[in-house]
Amino acid sequence: MDSALPGPAYSATARTTPTRHADRARYDEDTVHAVLDAEFVCHLGFVAEGAPVVLPTLYARVDRRLYLHGSTGSRPMRTVDGRRVCVTVTITDGIVLARAALHHSVNYRSVVVHGTAHRVTDPAERALALDAVVDQVVRGRSADCRPAGAKEHAMTAVLRVELDEVSAKVRTGDVADDPEDVELPHWAGVIPVRRTLGTPVPDAALPSGTPLPGYLAHLA
Amino acid sequence: MDSALPGPAYSATARTTPTRHADRARYDEDTVHAVLDAEFVCHLGFVAEGAPVVLPTLYARVDRRLYLHGSTGSRPMRTVDGRRVCVTVTITDGIVLARAALHHSVNYRSVVVHGTAHRVTDPAERALALDAVVDQVVRGRSADCRPAGAKEHAMTAVLRVELDEVSAKVRTGDVADDPEDVELPHWAGVIPVRRTLGTPVPDAALPSGTPLPGYLAHLA
Repeated sequence: MDSALPGPAYSATARTTPTRHADRARYDEDTVHAVLDAEFVCHLGFVAEGAPVVLPTLYARVDRRLYLHGSTGSRPMRTVDGRRVCVTVTITDGIVLARAALHHSVNYRSVVVHGTAHRVTDPAERALALDAVVDQVVRGRSADCRPAGAKEHAMTAVLRVELDEVSAKVRTGDVADDPEDVELPHWAGVIPVRRTLGTPVPDAALPSGTPLPGYLAHLA
Repeated sequence: MDSALPGPAYSATARTTPTRHADRARYDEDTVHAVLDAEFVCHLGFVAEGAPVVLPTLYARVDRRLYLHGSTGSRPMRTVDGRRVCVTVTITDGIVLARAALHHSVNYRSVVVHGTAHRVTDPAERALALDAVVDQVVRGRSADCRPAGAKEHAMTAVLRVELDEVSAKVRTGDVADDPEDVELPHWAGVIPVRRTLGTPVPDAALPSGTPLPGYLAHLA
């Protein structure tokens, strides 16, 4: 069947080939992009004065690129232009309680991106990236807010990281106890974990009775 | 009032002093430990061949220490003993939709730990750390599973990172639009975000009718 043909994929490298649990590694675009599209906070890693630094950062995926943004005064934005970065996105899906302590695990989906960060200076690309970061958090929102003005643009740094050396790692499914442990008298199973969005709380200055916009209506 | 006396706190360093949003930084043990105790997946950063690597990893906090564990064959466990690491824990609490694109934000709590990782070899400390990692995920679980045997211990590396150079960063509250934007016709407010645990799904091999243990009863 055509639908079973493999789609485009990222190439594995030494760094993106796990030293264990190789069965959990994924390189196909569908899996990698789905993980990246399901979150909006990444962990940006860089090296400062020889030591690693990991900071939570908002991001967006556009095709085979990531955009990150932050204040021009913030540490990562001042540090990483032209430098190696590692961008990691992790989603926790479940807690796996095995009978054996060592088989306790977590169901998760993660993507690790190795690359180089470049400051984006082209106005059109900056505008696209800033819209994408807003839409990554809430789809449709960028068309319903005031775009950045010139002064705000000057305060905002945008970084681009090409998706090239990329891998996903996915654990799904059940407890994996050793056969000789299955009779042990401990409860075993999986606790589902998910992120939920609550009812939107309007800003105090919003005129009372202002309806939720369509892109938030499902949260009412 | 005695209750208003400041409790113990971590000392700020150049690296843990933010270059902006200094009002969001926290160093008191209560805040730092509360964030660390509310999660079980951290992002471990280290430097490999000059480049940063960030990997999601299970951890536990015990007093002023973090313990991380993993297979002795995994990349971080083989790489980081005696080396500088950065361990970051982030919890997303809300999506802040401002009228201005640039004031979109996220309510979050994060902790960044700068330190050196050390392999734990003392059997008593290893046992304590492995129990702590299980209990970090589900309180009370370590007493209700089979502890690791000698062969499993040999397959498992435990790392200790002292909590010393540590800071939390916390954003809470409302939209922070500029006064001149408040009349703009865009919905503004905060969408609460939280993690929820679902009903535990028993392992297929568990005898039917096995009750949930007490430490999971609140999830029934």
